[in-house]
Amino acid sequence: MSTVRQRISDNADKAETEDNKNAPKEEEEETPEGLDLSGSLLPQATDQTSEVLDSALKTLPPRWRNWIVRGIFSLVMIFSFFFLIYLGPLALMLLILVIQLKCFNEIITIGYVVYRSHDLPWFRTLSWYFLFASDYFLYGENIIDRFGLLLSRDDFLEPFVKYHRFISMCLYMAGLMGFVFSLVKKHYLQQFTLFGWTHVTLLIVVTQSHFITNNIFEGLIWFFMSTSLIICNDIWAYIFGFFFGKTPLIKLSPKKTWEGFIGGAFATLIYGIIGSYILMQYDYFVCPAEYSPELGSVSMQCDPRPRVFTLQEYNLPQTIKNIFFLFGIPKTTYWTYPFFFHCIVFSLFASVIGPFGGFFASGFKRAFKIKDFGDTIPGHGGLMDRFDCQLLMGTFVYVYILCFIRAPNPNKLLQHVMMLKPEEQLDFYTKLTDELMKRGILGQ
Amino acid sequence: MSTVRQRISDNADKAETEDNKNAPKEEEEETPEGLDLSGSLLPQATDQTSEVLDSALKTLPPRWRNWIVRGIFSLVMIFSFFFLIYLGPLALMLLILVIQLKCFNEIITIGYVVYRSHDLPWFRTLSWYFLFASDYFLYGENIIDRFGLLLSRDDFLEPFVKYHRFISMCLYMAGLMGFVFSLVKKHYLQQFTLFGWTHVTLLIVVTQSHFITNNIFEGLIWFFMSTSLIICNDIWAYIFGFFFGKTPLIKLSPKKTWEGFIGGAFATLIYGIIGSYILMQYDYFVCPAEYSPELGSVSMQCDPRPRVFTLQEYNLPQTIKNIFFLFGIPKTTYWTYPFFFHCIVFSLFASVIGPFGGFFASGFKRAFKIKDFGDTIPGHGGLMDRFDCQLLMGTFVYVYILCFIRAPNPNKLLQHVMMLKPEEQLDFYTKLTDELMKRGILGQ
Repeated sequence: MSTVRQRISDNADKAETEDNKNAPKEEEEETPEGLDLSGSLLPQATDQTSEVLDSALKTLPPRWRNWIVRGIFSLVMIFSFFFLIYLGPLALMLLILVIQLKCFNEIITIGYVVYRSHDLPWFRTLSWYFLFASDYFLYGENIIDRFGLLLSRDDFLEPFVKYHRFISMCLYMAGLMGFVFSLVKKHYLQQFTLFGWTHVTLLIVVTQSHFITNNIFEGLIWFFMSTSLIICNDIWAYIFGFFFGKTPLIKLSPKKTWEGFIGGAFATLIYGIIGSYILMQYDYFVCPAEYSPELGSVSMQCDPRPRVFTLQEYNLPQTIKNIFFLFGIPKTTYWTYPFFFHCIVFSLFASVIGPFGGFFASGFKRAFKIKDFGDTIPGHGGLMDRFDCQLLMGTFVYVYILCFIRAPNPNKLLQHVMMLKPEEQLDFYTKLTDELMKRGILGQ
Repeated sequence: MSTVRQRISDNADKAETEDNKNAPKEEEEETPEGLDLSGSLLPQATDQTSEVLDSALKTLPPRWRNWIVRGIFSLVMIFSFFFLIYLGPLALMLLILVIQLKCFNEIITIGYVVYRSHDLPWFRTLSWYFLFASDYFLYGENIIDRFGLLLSRDDFLEPFVKYHRFISMCLYMAGLMGFVFSLVKKHYLQQFTLFGWTHVTLLIVVTQSHFITNNIFEGLIWFFMSTSLIICNDIWAYIFGFFFGKTPLIKLSPKKTWEGFIGGAFATLIYGIIGSYILMQYDYFVCPAEYSPELGSVSMQCDPRPRVFTLQEYNLPQTIKNIFFLFGIPKTTYWTYPFFFHCIVFSLFASVIGPFGGFFASGFKRAFKIKDFGDTIPGHGGLMDRFDCQLLMGTFVYVYILCFIRAPNPNKLLQHVMMLKPEEQLDFYTKLTDELMKRGILGQ
């Protein structure tokens, strides 16, 4: 037995005696013999805390030790998160990139081990190459969407802005050709399986994390509320389940209960309303991140604020109007922030649909007989174990913004005009001047 | 042995004795035992021609019979194709939809058989549901992009136009939840494998065929040239290979030769230039399909023609200028259609990169030890066998148009600006003025 295997299987033995929350105990599932699901080489949550922490906690029983480690690292993550929020959208974008790389690595490693592809030529290189091509495309789209005008002023960068999609496609097609060249007899099946594996991972991790990045630039409140609603729901569902949990919710996650589910949903709703009210007070959270030529950097100010964060008058529902009328109160409208409505929708999504991301991930882990996606965060498992629900939420908020919030963006329109030929730009300018004068928007 | 198995294995025996172009003869590949690669239930090209044809050709040796069947069905396909071109873009869009459904079905069936999922609950339903959700999204995007303004005039359709992406996302998420609910112990691994299988198929077949649909609406010439270049290259590479082929090109497709590859490339280039010159004469091919309110239908006329199909003056390369100068000819420019340049690029792509779609498909078929994707077209195999290279080409042309051809439409932009609020319009105006001055387009 090699030393690596030795160490990992030692750890596995140790873990057996502890409180294994999600470990699939039943081994009755049929496993095709070609697949290596023994898990002997898969990275597992090994409870490998740093040595300092280890020696400090040595005297405690393992169950308690695990709790404390989990708690400490939860706090560490929450504080790092706040610090990055303070640093601003670019730092958060980097955070998402790092998380995405790590999640991709975790999932690819599982495929790599399960399909015993250690001797496959180029597989890892190709996987990372496809990741690179996808990220080049998606981050490029993001950046061009926000800062395209600025970037295209630079002679060197201009073609990269203008032909971004074409360059991305060439990168991808080169990868595809590389894959075809890398095909070797006897391994076709493995190679195509891993090709599929890589692409599904790209679809799940990379595309969705691109949506999250987009939410960051739309205004930090969108990003912060969506992520914290999921975290809040996780924590409160756990607490409610711990104290009142009786009725099991779904077979896939035997520890989840209806009590936790409902309690979590209520707590998330309340948090959503209070949290969004507090954050709405700050320009820093409310304004979309845009490049400001005056500051020479990304600005987090806006004037006026987007309509969704300003008080609006709404009609009261007819029933309530009638009740008020009975009491002689002449109130027929009320004032509120539109964002409240959106936040209620997000809270419901975070507590009702969001958990399906987690169920999906636990089904996946059971399929491959692994406990966790990795051992990145002591006490928590892999990064993917923490972010499974975040991905679904991020996608929801992204599409929600796209359909219900985003009005045509003047900056983007300007960017499109700048893509016209000079004579067309001039033509457009005169037409616009005429039109604005006709409407009396432009004086004289 | 069931009758189905009996029939298929009979056919397989018969096929063995014939000229099996791509049949993987070597059986040394390791197959994980969980997978059923015996192919006994996979639909194979069974040479099942219609009975009339069969009895007419009975006296011929099988090898010739196969040739004649293949030839006849090639002609049938080519004539049907021309007939659909005559019917116009909507008929072609339906053609692409039908081909896409059939290709999806072929690939899903392979997954279904290989992973022995006959008893899996809901698998087929879910696969088709995901296809439906993807097509709803992609066709919707296409139609809204072209006819959105028209459709949103209708009160019933307006929300479908406005919230298209949100509705699509809800459809998809419902499918994801359905998948999670359909998970059953003992089958997790199969179910996740088939989930991945379905999604990779969607990525390869559905997304790319959506790009092809887009090309149709961009002007039939884009669609016609891109598809016919691939067909032309297929045919000529075959002919050159047949007569001059000596040097094998790539292990994956042992029948392909360098001679065929190079000969095919030349023939394709020549066809590209002649073909595009002829088609450019007709408005029907050149104009993008747009809804015309006067006609009350889709119009295939345009005035002026897109710039890419009109004669333009270009500078001669310096070397040629020098030569002309030596001979005392004062020529420094020449006139040509920009579309020629694009068509040369497409021809090169069709003959150099396009075949990789075919290599990819033949690798895939070898991985799963199948001869063809199905038996839809007598003499040819499955639809996927004919369209593997078309997909790659369609994507290339789509992105090419996006980056190099499609100019933002000034009138459409003006319309968007007029949808802004008055103060935003003014703001846009000042920003535009600044930007144009900076670039020296606007005097002073």
